Amino acid sequence: MDRIEAVSAHVDNNNGGKSLFIVKIGGNVIDNSENLYRFLKDFTALKGHKLLVHGGGKVATQLSETLGIEARLVDGRRITDIETLRVVTMIYAGLINKNIVAQLQRLGTNAIGLTGADGDFIRTKKRPVKTIDYGYVGDIDENSINPNNISSLMEAGFTPVFCALTHDGEGQLLNTNADTIASALAVALAKLYDTTLIYCFEKKGLLKDINDESSLVHEIDPQGYEELKAQQIIHSGMIPKMDNAFSAISCGVKAVIIGHSDDLGNLKNNKPFGTRLTKNR
Amino acid sequence: MDRIEAVSAHVDNNNGGKSLFIVKIGGNVIDNSENLYRFLKDFTALKGHKLLVHGGGKVATQLSETLGIEARLVDGRRITDIETLRVVTMIYAGLINKNIVAQLQRLGTNAIGLTGADGDFIRTKKRPVKTIDYGYVGDIDENSINPNNISSLMEAGFTPVFCALTHDGEGQLLNTNADTIASALAVALAKLYDTTLIYCFEKKGLLKDINDESSLVHEIDPQGYEELKAQQIIHSGMIPKMDNAFSAISCGVKAVIIGHSDDLGNLKNNKPFGTRLTKNR
Repeated sequence: MDRIEAVSAHVDNNNGGKSLFIVKIGGNVIDNSENLYRFLKDFTALKGHKLLVHGGGKVATQLSETLGIEARLVDGRRITDIETLRVVTMIYAGLINKNIVAQLQRLGTNAIGLTGADGDFIRTKKRPVKTIDYGYVGDIDENSINPNNISSLMEAGFTPVFCALTHDGEGQLLNTNADTIASALAVALAKLYDTTLIYCFEKKGLLKDINDESSLVHEIDPQGYEELKAQQIIHSGMIPKMDNAFSAISCGVKAVIIGHSDDLGNLKNNKPFGTRLTKNR
Repeated sequence: MDRIEAVSAHVDNNNGGKSLFIVKIGGNVIDNSENLYRFLKDFTALKGHKLLVHGGGKVATQLSETLGIEARLVDGRRITDIETLRVVTMIYAGLINKNIVAQLQRLGTNAIGLTGADGDFIRTKKRPVKTIDYGYVGDIDENSINPNNISSLMEAGFTPVFCALTHDGEGQLLNTNADTIASALAVALAKLYDTTLIYCFEKKGLLKDINDESSLVHEIDPQGYEELKAQQIIHSGMIPKMDNAFSAISCGVKAVIIGHSDDLGNLKNNKPFGTRLTKNR
Protein backbone atom coordinates (compact mmCIF):
# COMPACT_ATOMS: atom_id res chain seq x y z
CA MET A 1 0.00 0.00 0.00
CA ASP A 2 1.59 3.25 -0.97
CA ARG A 3 1.60 6.36 1.13
CA ILE A 4 -1.40 8.16 -0.30
CA GLU A 5 -3.55 5.07 -0.35
CA ALA A 6 -2.68 4.63 3.29
CA VAL A 7 -3.90 8.15 4.05
CA SER A 8 -7.08 7.75 2.05
CA ALA A 9 -7.90 4.38 3.54
CA HIS A 10 -7.24 5.74 6.97
CA VAL A 11 -9.46 8.77 6.47
CA ASP A 12 -12.29 6.81 4.91
CA ASN A 13 -12.39 3.98 7.40
CA ASN A 14 -12.72 5.75 10.73
CA ASN A 15 -15.36 7.61 12.71
CA GLY A 16 -18.06 7.39 10.06
CA GLY A 17 -16.50 10.08 7.90
CA LYS A 18 -15.47 12.29 10.81
CA SER A 19 -12.21 13.20 9.16
CA LEU A 20 -10.39 16.49 9.64
CA PHE A 21 -7.58 18.08 7.69
CA ILE A 22 -5.59 20.77 9.48
CA VAL A 23 -3.41 22.65 7.02
CA LYS A 24 -0.74 25.19 7.92
CA ILE A 25 0.64 27.69 5.40
CA GLY A 26 3.37 30.28 5.73
CA GLY A 27 4.80 33.28 3.94
CA ASN A 28 5.69 31.53 0.68
CA VAL A 29 1.99 30.96 0.01
CA ILE A 30 0.65 34.14 1.60
CA ASP A 31 3.04 36.55 -0.14
CA ASN A 32 1.99 35.57 -3.65
CA SER A 33 -1.68 36.10 -4.47
CA GLU A 34 -1.65 33.56 -7.34
CA ASN A 35 -0.05 30.87 -5.18
CA LEU A 36 -2.50 31.68 -2.41
CA TYR A 37 -5.56 31.44 -4.63
CA ARG A 38 -4.42 28.13 -6.15
CA PHE A 39 -3.74 26.80 -2.67
CA LEU A 40 -7.17 27.92 -1.38
CA LYS A 41 -8.82 26.14 -4.31
CA ASP A 42 -7.02 22.91 -3.42
CA PHE A 43 -7.86 23.45 0.25
CA THR A 44 -11.54 23.87 -0.66
CA ALA A 45 -11.40 20.56 -2.59
CA LEU A 46 -10.37 18.60 0.54
CA LYS A 47 -13.27 16.48 1.70
CA GLY A 48 -14.64 16.42 5.23
CA HIS A 49 -13.98 18.98 7.92
CA LYS A 50 -10.98 21.22 7.50
CA LEU A 51 -9.17 23.96 9.36
CA LEU A 52 -6.52 26.39 8.13
CA VAL A 53 -3.69 27.93 10.14
CA HIS A 54 -1.60 30.70 8.63
CA GLY A 55 1.51 32.54 9.70
CA GLY A 56 2.59 35.99 8.61
CA GLY A 57 4.34 37.13 5.52
CA LYS A 58 6.59 39.83 4.17
CA VAL A 59 3.80 42.37 4.56
CA ALA A 60 4.25 42.44 8.37
CA THR A 61 7.97 43.14 7.97
CA GLN A 62 7.22 45.80 5.34
CA LEU A 63 4.69 47.58 7.56
CA SER A 64 7.08 47.49 10.51
CA GLU A 65 9.79 49.04 8.35
CA THR A 66 7.44 51.73 7.03
CA LEU A 67 6.42 52.57 10.60
CA GLY A 68 10.07 52.70 11.67
CA ILE A 69 9.75 49.74 14.06
CA GLU A 70 13.09 47.98 14.21
CA ALA A 71 13.02 44.19 14.11
CA ARG A 72 14.77 42.98 17.23
CA LEU A 73 16.24 39.52 16.93
CA VAL A 74 17.99 37.61 19.69
CA ASP A 75 19.70 34.35 18.67
CA GLY A 76 17.78 34.55 15.38
CA ARG A 77 14.42 34.76 17.16
CA ARG A 78 12.20 37.75 16.79
CA ILE A 79 11.28 39.75 19.88
CA THR A 80 7.65 40.84 19.97
CA ASP A 81 7.61 44.25 21.63
CA ILE A 82 4.32 46.11 22.03
CA GLU A 83 4.69 47.94 18.70
CA THR A 84 5.45 44.70 16.86
CA LEU A 85 2.43 43.08 18.51
CA ARG A 86 0.25 45.90 17.15
CA VAL A 87 1.65 45.35 13.66
CA VAL A 88 1.15 41.58 13.68
CA THR A 89 -2.38 42.01 15.06
CA MET A 90 -3.17 44.35 12.16
CA ILE A 91 -1.51 42.18 9.52
CA TYR A 92 -2.18 38.62 10.70
CA ALA A 93 -5.69 39.01 12.16
CA GLY A 94 -6.75 41.84 9.83
CA LEU A 95 -5.22 42.04 6.39
CA ILE A 96 -4.08 38.45 5.79
CA ASN A 97 -6.78 36.59 7.70
CA LYS A 98 -9.76 38.49 6.32
CA ASN A 99 -8.51 38.42 2.74
CA ILE A 100 -8.09 34.64 3.01
CA VAL A 101 -11.62 34.39 4.43
CA ALA A 102 -13.05 36.50 1.59
CA GLN A 103 -11.25 34.34 -1.01
CA LEU A 104 -12.46 31.13 0.64
CA GLN A 105 -16.03 32.44 0.62
CA ARG A 106 -15.65 33.14 -3.10
CA LEU A 107 -14.60 29.50 -3.53
CA GLY A 108 -17.54 28.20 -1.51
CA THR A 109 -15.79 27.41 1.77
CA ASN A 110 -17.73 28.93 4.66
CA ALA A 111 -14.66 30.26 6.48
CA ILE A 112 -14.52 32.11 9.79
CA GLY A 113 -11.27 33.94 10.55
CA LEU A 114 -10.01 33.63 14.11
CA THR A 115 -7.31 34.33 16.63
CA GLY A 116 -6.97 32.17 19.71
CA ALA A 117 -8.77 34.93 21.64
CA ASP A 118 -11.94 34.41 19.59
CA GLY A 119 -14.16 31.85 21.29
CA ASP A 120 -11.36 31.47 23.89
CA PHE A 121 -10.12 28.78 21.51
CA ILE A 122 -6.40 28.98 22.28
CA ARG A 123 -5.24 30.32 25.59
CA THR A 124 -1.50 30.69 26.14
CA LYS A 125 0.93 31.90 28.78
CA LYS A 126 3.28 34.79 28.13
CA ARG A 127 6.73 33.24 27.82
CA PRO A 128 8.60 33.69 31.12
CA VAL A 129 11.74 35.82 30.98
CA LYS A 130 14.82 33.69 31.57
CA THR A 131 17.91 34.97 29.77
CA ILE A 132 15.84 36.49 26.94
CA ASP A 133 12.65 38.51 27.15
CA TYR A 134 10.74 37.50 24.03
CA GLY A 135 8.07 40.08 24.77
CA TYR A 136 4.44 39.41 23.88
CA VAL A 137 4.89 35.78 22.89
CA GLY A 138 2.53 33.09 24.12
CA ASP A 139 3.38 29.44 24.76
CA ILE A 140 0.52 27.03 24.29
CA ASP A 141 -0.69 24.84 27.08
CA GLU A 142 -2.08 22.04 24.90
CA ASN A 143 -4.49 20.94 27.60
CA SER A 144 -6.14 24.37 27.52
CA ILE A 145 -7.60 23.77 24.04
CA ASN A 146 -11.15 22.50 24.33
CA PRO A 147 -11.84 20.48 21.16
CA ASN A 148 -15.63 20.55 21.71
CA ASN A 149 -15.57 24.33 21.57
CA ILE A 150 -13.92 24.37 18.12
CA SER A 151 -15.91 21.36 17.00
CA SER A 152 -19.17 23.22 17.69
CA LEU A 153 -18.12 25.76 15.04
CA MET A 154 -17.21 23.09 12.51
CA GLU A 155 -20.36 21.06 13.14
CA ALA A 156 -22.36 24.25 12.52
CA GLY A 157 -20.83 24.28 9.03
CA PHE A 158 -17.98 26.74 9.46
CA THR A 159 -14.34 26.29 8.46
CA PRO A 160 -12.02 27.92 11.03
CA VAL A 161 -9.07 29.95 9.72
CA PHE A 162 -6.60 30.66 12.52
CA CYS A 163 -3.85 33.25 12.43
CA ALA A 164 -0.78 33.13 14.67
CA LEU A 165 -2.22 35.07 17.61
CA THR A 166 -3.55 33.80 20.92
CA HIS A 167 -4.49 35.37 24.26
CA ASP A 168 -3.78 34.89 27.94
CA GLY A 169 -7.38 35.17 29.16
CA GLU A 170 -6.48 38.42 30.93
CA GLY A 171 -7.07 40.67 27.94
CA GLN A 172 -3.62 40.35 26.37
CA LEU A 173 -3.11 39.15 22.81
CA LEU A 174 0.08 37.15 22.29
CA ASN A 175 2.12 36.27 19.21
CA THR A 176 2.35 32.48 18.88
CA ASN A 177 4.20 30.25 16.43
CA ALA A 178 1.81 29.07 13.71
CA ASP A 179 3.40 25.60 13.44
CA THR A 180 2.83 25.10 17.16
CA ILE A 181 -0.78 26.33 16.89
CA ALA A 182 -1.41 23.84 14.09
CA SER A 183 0.02 20.89 16.01
CA ALA A 184 -1.72 21.85 19.26
CA LEU A 185 -5.07 22.11 17.44
CA ALA A 186 -4.41 18.76 15.74
CA VAL A 187 -3.66 17.06 19.06
CA ALA A 188 -6.78 18.52 20.71
CA LEU A 189 -9.07 17.75 17.77
CA ALA A 190 -7.64 14.22 17.30
CA LYS A 191 -9.85 13.33 20.29
CA LEU A 192 -12.92 13.95 18.10
CA TYR A 193 -11.74 13.56 14.50
CA ASP A 194 -9.57 11.32 12.41
CA THR A 195 -7.04 14.13 12.01
CA THR A 196 -4.42 14.66 9.29
CA LEU A 197 -2.02 17.56 9.88
CA ILE A 198 -0.41 19.08 6.80
CA TYR A 199 2.49 21.54 6.95
CA CYS A 200 2.94 23.42 3.68
CA PHE A 201 6.34 25.00 3.15
CA GLU A 202 8.70 25.99 0.35
CA LYS A 203 10.03 22.49 -0.41
CA LYS A 204 8.44 19.30 -1.78
CA GLY A 205 8.96 17.75 1.64
CA LEU A 206 11.93 16.39 3.53
CA LEU A 207 14.80 16.23 1.02
CA LYS A 208 17.98 14.19 1.57
CA ASP A 209 19.72 16.71 -0.69
CA ILE A 210 18.20 20.15 -0.27
CA ASN A 211 19.08 21.06 -3.87
CA ASP A 212 17.55 17.94 -5.39
CA GLU A 213 13.79 17.56 -5.25
CA SER A 214 14.08 13.97 -6.47
CA SER A 215 15.69 13.17 -3.12
CA LEU A 216 12.29 13.52 -1.43
CA VAL A 217 11.76 11.21 1.53
CA HIS A 218 8.27 9.80 1.01
CA GLU A 219 7.85 8.38 4.48
CA ILE A 220 9.77 8.62 7.74
CA ASP A 221 9.35 7.34 11.28
CA PRO A 222 11.02 8.62 14.48
CA GLN A 223 13.87 6.15 14.12
CA GLY A 224 14.59 7.27 10.54
CA TYR A 225 14.39 10.88 11.71
CA GLU A 226 17.04 10.28 14.38
CA GLU A 227 19.28 8.68 11.78
CA LEU A 228 18.96 11.60 9.36
CA LYS A 229 19.59 14.08 12.19
CA ALA A 230 22.73 12.12 13.22
CA GLN A 231 23.92 12.32 9.60
CA GLN A 232 23.16 16.08 9.67
CA ILE A 233 20.99 15.63 6.59
CA ILE A 234 18.06 17.40 8.25
CA HIS A 235 18.35 21.17 8.04
CA SER A 236 18.33 23.08 11.33
CA GLY A 237 15.12 24.97 10.47
CA MET A 238 13.40 21.65 9.81
CA ILE A 239 14.10 20.29 13.28
CA PRO A 240 11.40 22.20 15.25
CA LYS A 241 8.91 21.44 12.45
CA MET A 242 9.71 17.72 12.55
CA ASP A 243 9.72 17.64 16.36
CA ASN A 244 6.28 19.28 16.43
CA ALA A 245 5.04 16.78 13.88
CA PHE A 246 6.28 13.66 15.65
CA SER A 247 5.01 15.01 18.95
CA ALA A 248 1.55 15.41 17.37
CA ILE A 249 1.61 11.82 16.11
CA SER A 250 2.60 10.49 19.51
CA CYS A 251 -0.43 12.38 20.91
CA GLY A 252 -3.01 10.77 18.62
CA VAL A 253 -2.82 12.66 15.30
CA LYS A 254 -3.21 10.01 12.62
CA ALA A 255 -0.91 11.41 9.95
CA VAL A 256 1.36 14.39 9.42
CA ILE A 257 2.42 15.40 5.93
CA ILE A 258 5.10 18.01 5.16
CA GLY A 259 4.99 19.25 1.59
CA HIS A 260 4.72 22.09 -0.89
CA SER A 261 1.44 24.00 -1.09
CA ASP A 262 1.46 23.65 -4.90
CA ASP A 263 1.14 19.88 -4.47
CA LEU A 264 -1.82 19.88 -2.05
CA GLY A 265 -4.13 19.13 -4.98
CA ASN A 266 -2.33 15.78 -5.39
CA LEU A 267 -4.19 14.53 -2.33
CA LYS A 268 -7.54 14.49 -4.09
CA ASN A 269 -5.99 12.92 -7.20
CA ASN A 270 -4.27 10.17 -5.19
CA LYS A 271 -0.86 11.33 -6.33
CA PRO A 272 2.20 11.43 -4.05
CA PHE A 273 2.33 14.48 -1.80
CA GLY A 274 5.24 15.48 0.43
CA THR A 275 6.78 13.50 3.25
CA ARG A 276 4.52 11.42 5.43
CA LEU A 277 5.53 11.11 9.06
CA THR A 278 4.50 7.89 10.77
CA LYS A 279 4.89 6.14 14.10
CA ASN A 280 7.77 3.71 14.59
CA ARG A 281 6.97 0.44 12.87
CA MET B 1 -45.12 52.55 32.62
CA ASP B 2 -41.89 54.39 32.13
CA ARG B 3 -39.47 53.82 29.32
CA ILE B 4 -37.12 51.35 30.98
CA GLU B 5 -39.90 49.29 32.50
CA ALA B 6 -41.38 49.05 29.05
CA VAL B 7 -38.10 47.72 27.68
CA SER B 8 -37.66 45.25 30.52
CA ALA B 9 -41.22 44.00 30.37
CA HIS B 10 -40.90 43.66 26.66
CA VAL B 11 -37.67 41.71 26.88
CA ASP B 12 -38.90 39.44 29.66
CA ASN B 13 -42.29 38.60 28.24
CA ASN B 14 -41.48 37.30 24.77
CA ASN B 15 -40.01 34.22 23.12
CA GLY B 16 -39.27 32.38 26.35
CA GLY B 17 -36.26 34.54 27.16
CA LYS B 18 -35.03 34.71 23.57
CA SER B 19 -33.98 38.30 23.90
CA LEU B 20 -31.14 39.89 21.99
CA PHE B 21 -29.31 43.17 22.51
CA ILE B 22 -27.43 44.54 19.53
CA VAL B 23 -25.13 47.36 20.61
CA LYS B 24 -23.21 49.65 18.27
CA ILE B 25 -20.23 51.70 19.46
CA GLY B 26 -18.10 54.24 17.64
CA GLY B 27 -14.85 56.15 17.98
CA ASN B 28 -15.72 57.95 21.22
CA VAL B 29 -15.72 54.60 23.03
CA ILE B 30 -13.00 52.87 21.02
CA ASP B 31 -10.44 55.68 21.22
CA ASN B 32 -10.29 55.72 25.03
CA SER B 33 -9.21 52.45 26.65
CA GLU B 34 -10.83 53.31 30.01
CA ASN B 35 -14.17 54.19 28.39
CA LEU B 36 -13.95 51.03 26.31
CA TYR B 37 -13.26 48.77 29.26
CA ARG B 38 -16.12 50.29 31.31
CA PHE B 39 -18.43 49.91 28.33
CA LEU B 40 -17.39 46.26 27.78
CA LYS B 41 -18.12 45.54 31.46
CA ASP B 42 -21.63 46.99 31.07
CA PHE B 43 -22.08 45.10 27.79
CA THR B 44 -21.09 41.85 29.55
CA ALA B 45 -23.72 42.55 32.23
CA LEU B 46 -26.55 42.60 29.67
CA LYS B 47 -28.66 39.48 30.06
CA GLY B 48 -29.58 37.14 27.23
CA HIS B 49 -27.95 36.98 23.83
CA LYS B 50 -25.95 39.97 22.72
CA LEU B 51 -24.03 41.16 19.71
CA LEU B 52 -21.59 44.06 19.36
CA VAL B 53 -20.95 46.19 16.27
CA HIS B 54 -18.05 48.63 16.25
CA GLY B 55 -16.88 51.30 13.87
CA GLY B 56 -13.39 52.66 13.53
CA GLY B 57 -11.56 55.25 15.53
CA LYS B 58 -8.81 57.80 15.32
CA VAL B 59 -6.25 55.04 15.00
CA ALA B 60 -7.30 54.34 11.38
CA THR B 61 -6.84 58.01 10.49
CA GLN B 62 -3.51 58.08 12.30
CA LEU B 63 -2.21 55.02 10.47
CA SER B 64 -3.33 56.43 7.13
CA GLU B 65 -1.48 59.66 7.87
CA THR B 66 1.66 57.81 8.95
CA LEU B 67 1.55 55.78 5.73
CA GLY B 68 1.04 58.94 3.69
CA ILE B 69 -2.41 57.94 2.46
CA GLU B 70 -4.44 61.07 1.89
CA ALA B 71 -8.02 61.03 3.15
CA ARG B 72 -10.21 61.76 0.15
CA LEU B 73 -13.58 63.26 1.04
CA VAL B 74 -16.35 64.08 -1.42
CA ASP B 75 -19.32 66.00 0.01
CA GLY B 76 -18.03 65.16 3.48
CA ARG B 77 -18.01 61.43 2.76
CA ARG B 78 -14.83 59.43 2.83
CA ILE B 79 -13.73 57.64 -0.33
CA THR B 80 -12.37 54.15 0.29
CA ASP B 81 -9.60 53.62 -2.23
CA ILE B 82 -7.64 50.36 -2.21
CA GLU B 83 -4.99 51.72 0.18
CA THR B 84 -7.62 52.97 2.61
CA LEU B 85 -9.38 49.59 2.43
CA ARG B 86 -6.11 47.91 3.44
CA VAL B 87 -5.77 50.29 6.40
CA VAL B 88 -9.33 49.79 7.65
CA THR B 89 -8.98 46.02 7.24
CA MET B 90 -5.87 46.13 9.43
CA ILE B 91 -7.35 48.49 12.01
CA TYR B 92 -11.03 47.49 12.17
CA ALA B 93 -10.75 43.71 11.72
CA GLY B 94 -7.29 43.40 13.29
CA LEU B 95 -6.28 45.88 15.96
CA ILE B 96 -9.63 47.13 17.25
CA ASN B 97 -11.71 43.98 16.82
CA LYS B 98 -9.23 41.54 18.35
CA ASN B 99 -8.41 43.79 21.28
CA ILE B 100 -12.14 44.10 22.03
CA VAL B 101 -12.46 40.31 21.81
CA ALA B 102 -9.51 39.79 24.19
CA GLN B 103 -11.01 42.28 26.69
CA LEU B 104 -14.43 40.62 26.48
CA GLN B 105 -12.85 37.22 27.10
CA ARG B 106 -11.17 38.70 30.18
CA LEU B 107 -14.62 39.80 31.36
CA GLY B 108 -16.18 36.39 30.74
CA THR B 109 -18.01 37.09 27.47
CA ASN B 110 -17.19 34.37 24.94
CA ALA B 111 -16.71 36.78 22.02
CA ILE B 112 -15.88 35.94 18.41
CA GLY B 113 -14.64 38.83 16.26
CA LEU B 114 -16.04 38.98 12.75
CA THR B 115 -16.32 40.82 9.48
CA GLY B 116 -19.29 40.23 7.21
CA ALA B 117 -17.03 37.94 5.14
CA ASP B 118 -16.68 35.52 8.04
CA GLY B 119 -19.40 32.90 7.88
CA ASP B 120 -20.74 34.79 4.83
CA PHE B 121 -22.75 36.68 7.45
CA ILE B 122 -23.10 40.01 5.63
CA ARG B 123 -22.85 40.14 1.88
CA THR B 124 -22.98 43.56 0.23
CA LYS B 125 -22.80 45.08 -3.23
CA LYS B 126 -20.06 47.54 -4.15
CA ARG B 127 -21.77 50.91 -4.39
CA PRO B 128 -22.44 51.72 -8.06
CA VAL B 129 -20.67 54.78 -9.45
CA LYS B 130 -23.15 57.55 -10.23
CA THR B 131 -21.69 61.03 -9.82
CA ILE B 132 -19.26 59.91 -7.12
CA ASP B 133 -17.09 56.79 -6.99
CA TYR B 134 -17.01 55.90 -3.30
CA GLY B 135 -14.50 53.13 -3.99
CA TYR B 136 -14.56 49.92 -1.96
CA VAL B 137 -17.79 50.64 -0.11
CA GLY B 138 -20.50 48.01 0.23
CA ASP B 139 -24.24 48.62 0.47
CA ILE B 140 -26.16 46.02 2.42
CA ASP B 141 -28.91 44.02 0.85
CA GLU B 142 -30.84 43.32 4.07
CA ASN B 143 -32.44 40.24 2.62
CA SER B 144 -29.02 38.69 2.14
CA ILE B 145 -28.48 38.32 5.90
CA ASN B 146 -29.43 34.83 7.01
CA PRO B 147 -30.42 35.10 10.69
CA ASN B 148 -30.16 31.33 11.23
CA ASN B 149 -26.52 31.43 10.24
CA ILE B 150 -25.66 34.03 12.91
CA SER B 151 -28.06 32.46 15.38
CA SER B 152 -26.17 29.14 15.11
CA LEU B 153 -23.10 30.93 16.49
CA MET B 154 -25.03 32.54 19.34
CA GLU B 155 -26.86 29.34 20.26
CA ALA B 156 -23.44 27.62 20.45
CA GLY B 157 -22.60 30.13 23.20
CA PHE B 158 -20.60 32.71 21.26
CA THR B 159 -21.08 36.50 21.29
CA PRO B 160 -20.45 37.96 17.81
CA VAL B 161 -18.42 41.17 17.57
CA PHE B 162 -18.74 42.68 14.11
CA CYS B 163 -16.49 45.36 12.65
CA ALA B 164 -17.50 47.64 9.78
CA LEU B 165 -16.35 45.39 6.94
CA THR B 166 -18.38 43.15 4.66
CA HIS B 167 -17.72 41.26 1.42
CA ASP B 168 -19.27 40.85 -2.00
CA GLY B 169 -19.04 37.06 -2.20
CA GLU B 170 -16.52 37.41 -5.03
CA GLY B 171 -13.48 37.73 -2.79
CA GLN B 172 -13.66 41.50 -2.24
CA LEU B 173 -13.83 43.02 1.23
CA LEU B 174 -15.88 46.24 1.39
CA ASN B 175 -16.04 49.08 3.89
CA THR B 176 -19.59 49.38 5.25
CA ASN B 177 -21.20 51.86 7.61
CA ALA B 178 -21.34 50.38 11.13
CA ASP B 179 -24.74 51.97 11.94
CA THR B 180 -26.20 50.31 8.85
CA ILE B 181 -24.62 46.96 9.75
CA ALA B 182 -26.17 47.19 13.23
CA SER B 183 -29.66 47.96 11.94
CA ALA B 184 -29.49 45.34 9.17
CA LEU B 185 -28.42 42.69 11.70
CA ALA B 186 -31.21 43.81 14.05
CA VAL B 187 -33.83 43.53 11.31
CA ALA B 188 -32.63 40.07 10.26
CA LEU B 189 -32.33 38.75 13.81
CA ALA B 190 -35.70 40.23 14.87
CA LYS B 191 -37.19 37.23 13.04
CA LEU B 192 -35.70 34.97 15.73
CA TYR B 193 -35.20 37.15 18.79
CA ASP B 194 -36.93 39.84 20.77
CA THR B 195 -34.36 42.40 19.58
CA THR B 196 -33.33 45.70 21.16
CA LEU B 197 -30.93 47.81 19.10
CA ILE B 198 -28.75 50.28 21.01
CA TYR B 199 -26.70 53.00 19.34
CA CYS B 200 -24.04 54.42 21.63
CA PHE B 201 -22.69 57.81 20.71
CA GLU B 202 -21.14 60.91 22.28
CA LYS B 203 -24.41 62.41 23.65
CA LYS B 204 -26.92 61.28 26.28
CA GLY B 205 -29.43 60.76 23.49
CA LEU B 206 -31.51 63.03 21.29
CA LEU B 207 -31.21 66.53 22.79
CA LYS B 208 -33.57 69.40 21.99
CA ASP B 209 -30.71 71.75 22.83
CA ILE B 210 -27.40 70.17 21.85
CA ASN B 211 -25.61 72.11 24.63
CA ASP B 212 -28.02 71.08 27.38
CA GLU B 213 -28.11 67.43 28.43
CA SER B 214 -31.23 68.06 30.51
CA SER B 215 -33.07 68.63 27.21
CA LEU B 216 -32.89 64.86 26.55
CA VAL B 217 -35.88 63.46 24.68
CA HIS B 218 -36.79 60.27 26.55
CA GLU B 219 -39.06 58.85 23.90
CA ILE B 220 -39.90 59.71 20.31
CA ASP B 221 -42.06 58.25 17.57
CA PRO B 222 -41.87 58.89 13.79
CA GLN B 223 -44.41 61.74 14.03
CA GLY B 224 -42.40 63.48 16.78
CA TYR B 225 -39.27 62.93 14.72
CA GLU B 226 -40.80 64.67 11.69
CA GLU B 227 -41.81 67.61 13.89
CA LEU B 228 -38.31 68.00 15.33
CA LYS B 229 -36.82 67.76 11.85
CA ALA B 230 -39.21 70.44 10.58
CA GLN B 231 -38.12 72.68 13.47
CA GLN B 232 -34.49 71.92 12.53
CA ILE B 233 -33.88 70.77 16.10
CA ILE B 234 -32.41 67.49 14.90
CA HIS B 235 -28.77 67.83 13.91
CA SER B 236 -27.86 66.82 10.36
CA GLY B 237 -25.52 64.03 11.52
CA MET B 238 -28.39 62.58 13.59
CA ILE B 239 -30.71 62.20 10.61
CA PRO B 240 -29.19 59.06 9.04
CA LYS B 241 -28.91 57.51 12.52
CA MET B 242 -32.58 58.23 13.28
CA ASP B 243 -33.69 57.11 9.82
CA ASN B 244 -31.84 53.81 10.26
CA ALA B 245 -33.40 53.36 13.67
CA PHE B 246 -37.01 54.02 12.60
CA SER B 247 -36.52 51.83 9.57
CA ALA B 248 -35.39 49.00 11.87
CA ILE B 249 -38.48 49.43 14.06
CA SER B 250 -40.79 49.37 11.06
CA CYS B 251 -39.12 46.06 10.10
CA GLY B 252 -39.77 44.27 13.38
CA VAL B 253 -37.07 45.43 15.81
CA LYS B 254 -38.82 45.86 19.16
CA ALA B 255 -36.92 48.85 20.53
CA VAL B 256 -34.14 51.20 19.48
CA ILE B 257 -32.27 53.22 22.08
CA ILE B 258 -29.83 56.02 21.28
CA GLY B 259 -27.62 56.99 24.21
CA HIS B 260 -24.18 57.46 25.72
CA SER B 261 -22.00 54.40 26.26
CA ASP B 262 -21.27 55.55 29.83
CA ASP B 263 -24.96 55.10 30.64
CA LEU B 264 -25.38 51.56 29.26
CA GLY B 265 -25.07 50.21 32.81
CA ASN B 266 -28.33 52.03 33.65
CA LEU B 267 -30.21 49.34 31.72
CA LYS B 268 -29.44 46.66 34.30
CA ASN B 269 -30.22 49.05 37.17
CA ASN B 270 -33.57 50.07 35.66
CA LYS B 271 -32.44 53.69 35.41
CA PRO B 272 -33.25 55.95 32.45
CA PHE B 273 -30.99 55.42 29.46
CA GLY B 274 -30.92 57.54 26.31
CA THR B 275 -33.74 58.19 23.87
CA ARG B 276 -36.13 55.38 23.11
CA LEU B 277 -37.52 55.26 19.60
CA THR B 278 -40.97 53.76 19.26
CA LYS B 279 -43.62 53.14 16.62
CA ASN B 280 -46.30 55.75 16.07
CA ARG B 281 -48.87 55.52 18.84
